Amino acid sequence: MTRLVLDVDTGIDDTLALCYLLASPEAELMGVVGTYGNVTARDSVRNNRAVLRLFGHGHIPVMLGCEAPSWADLFEVDEGCARFHGSNGLGNVDPTDYLPDGIAIGADAAGHDDDPAASARTSVAAFRGTLTKSVGGERVAIDATAESAALADAAAASREGEGVRFIVDAVRRYGRDVTVVATGPLTDVDAAIRLAPDIVPSLKLVIMGGSLTQEGNCYDLICETNIFQDPEAANRVFRSGADVTMIGLDVTHQCLMTRADADLWRATGTPCGAFLADMVRFYINANEASDPIFLAGSPLHDPLAAAVALDPTLVGLFDVNMMTETATGNGHGFRGRTIGDPTRLREPRKTSHVALTVDAPRFTATFRDRIAGLCAA
Amino acid sequence: MTRLVLDVDTGIDDTLALCYLLASPEAELMGVVGTYGNVTARDSVRNNRAVLRLFGHGHIPVMLGCEAPSWADLFEVDEGCARFHGSNGLGNVDPTDYLPDGIAIGADAAGHDDDPAASARTSVAAFRGTLTKSVGGERVAIDATAESAALADAAAASREGEGVRFIVDAVRRYGRDVTVVATGPLTDVDAAIRLAPDIVPSLKLVIMGGSLTQEGNCYDLICETNIFQDPEAANRVFRSGADVTMIGLDVTHQCLMTRADADLWRATGTPCGAFLADMVRFYINANEASDPIFLAGSPLHDPLAAAVALDPTLVGLFDVNMMTETATGNGHGFRGRTIGDPTRLREPRKTSHVALTVDAPRFTATFRDRIAGLCAA
Repeated sequence: MTRLVLDVDTGIDDTLALCYLLASPEAELMGVVGTYGNVTARDSVRNNRAVLRLFGHGHIPVMLGCEAPSWADLFEVDEGCARFHGSNGLGNVDPTDYLPDGIAIGADAAGHDDDPAASARTSVAAFRGTLTKSVGGERVAIDATAESAALADAAAASREGEGVRFIVDAVRRYGRDVTVVATGPLTDVDAAIRLAPDIVPSLKLVIMGGSLTQEGNCYDLICETNIFQDPEAANRVFRSGADVTMIGLDVTHQCLMTRADADLWRATGTPCGAFLADMVRFYINANEASDPIFLAGSPLHDPLAAAVALDPTLVGLFDVNMMTETATGNGHGFRGRTIGDPTRLREPRKTSHVALTVDAPRFTATFRDRIAGLCAA
Repeated sequence: MTRLVLDVDTGIDDTLALCYLLASPEAELMGVVGTYGNVTARDSVRNNRAVLRLFGHGHIPVMLGCEAPSWADLFEVDEGCARFHGSNGLGNVDPTDYLPDGIAIGADAAGHDDDPAASARTSVAAFRGTLTKSVGGERVAIDATAESAALADAAAASREGEGVRFIVDAVRRYGRDVTVVATGPLTDVDAAIRLAPDIVPSLKLVIMGGSLTQEGNCYDLICETNIFQDPEAANRVFRSGADVTMIGLDVTHQCLMTRADADLWRATGTPCGAFLADMVRFYINANEASDPIFLAGSPLHDPLAAAVALDPTLVGLFDVNMMTETATGNGHGFRGRTIGDPTRLREPRKTSHVALTVDAPRFTATFRDRIAGLCAA
């Protein structure tokens, strides 16, 4: 079993990453932190909760992460992000519409829906029950329930942001026995490291972000969107000494989802299958419209990072000390570019591991089939 | 034995690459093409001839390559290049000053020194003599002498540029049994491919140029100097389908030459040792002044490319289809940047092989010792 904390800016492919973890018997998801990026942090929290409930995992704690980049006081969703993810982050599809009649998704038992900060507390209440998950067709007890609930309680009660606090406490409690998967800007992880530098030696981090050997996906083609949102945070994380596995465009652009995948999920005949198929239709349309390259399929950015956290053999890793440039111009490079750190080029210890190759056929087939299994269940 | 054609913009580290090949018993250097870059093409030809004569290899044909980038009609040496290589390309050191009395380096037997285009013809005249080289302490005959001389004759007599013609004819004659090592802009190689597209399937090319996982060395830190000189040519070469081994800053910045190396060469007590020690002093000073990183040593860019052509096991290669961006701005990237080609990311055949790791201790020791041996001989 792999114990995980997922930090997401949900986001269509964030949703698919979340679903991949729910669908993976070897994953033990301790909690989900919603941060800004593809949507606002509060929308991310709301999306995470709605998706978890729709898929029958409403007990998993969802916490609010940072609401703006470390270099800014405010955040507004970029037009480009909305173009790929819809104005609500889920392809303008509402998970509520897919719930069987009589189950309200909009509000939880305590009526806290409009207060994202209350999400951890209310989730934890459910989390304290007896939890099981499906492993190889059988339902087995989830063993870390009480511990996760305690961490979520503490995070919700802390004066720091609950999402950041949850990351800190999870790493302090489990060390390298928990993997933090961050598929949005690295603001939360950076804040966790700054709040608790003691977690650095044991922080095991898998990120979706950056691009080292391929063009970026911001319009300049030099930067990748997640890193570009908060270059300072990404740079501090890369240079902190923490162990970072980087799943960037180098490999995610090789792992494509097609309309046939969505058709398979829809064919399960379940509300979950219909929801995912409708949601990804928006994403596939947007990708096709953005670049002829994506006529072959839409990149599975965030799900690949989740999958690598469970099975690192999916990718070939290049060990290198990374940095993020934080300014543009002579002597600076390009703000938001992920690149090798020249000051640590010849250091024997490499703190980052950048995926440059991927077994795309194996991953895409596993992804398609696991999501189909989740929808059918 | 490895048969080679060397294309250089000589340049201090180009000179060191040339010397490394002269010092390597397994290298059979067929000819040297001088192109623009660190100096003008005509200065490069003159430098190559002077260095070859000083080291007792004046018989090797030297030919004039392209004198300007493919996108320009004129070329002027960049101030930055002159800062690292001196105004004459050899650290403002004149090889003539190191020749024993009575041997004139300024003019060859036919008095053609002021006519670079005559360099091939005059070299060939010497080349037709009985040639030997030192292998394991013994002198053995060079077997390809007549063939190289014939190619140089044909190149000199052709209406196309003699350097480009020599590359074309060498590849047509020897296929993958000759390696083209290009340590300057890729203008000559591009011109060869455009002149004779039939050489592409058998062209075996090792370049010093570009940077994939490290910052560049132009002031923007995005581009590498050789590629930046002629991005269109580099892009055409990368996308031609030809087999390219790229030795970029990823690895050359790990292979450093120090003042101790120069001291070792000077300690041989020979004119050659004194010349190289004086020349590299300029290069080491310039590198130290440019970046504190180079206080540890100065990068052996071009010699590493020459060494990898002889022994590919020195580096770890990442197979990837490369391109060079040719414009800057939204939707374009950055003119001169070397990066993976998105249109060929998922193609199984990878035409480029980018060195990302290097056995720096083994290379730098071999380099130091071979050059010392050459100076002593």
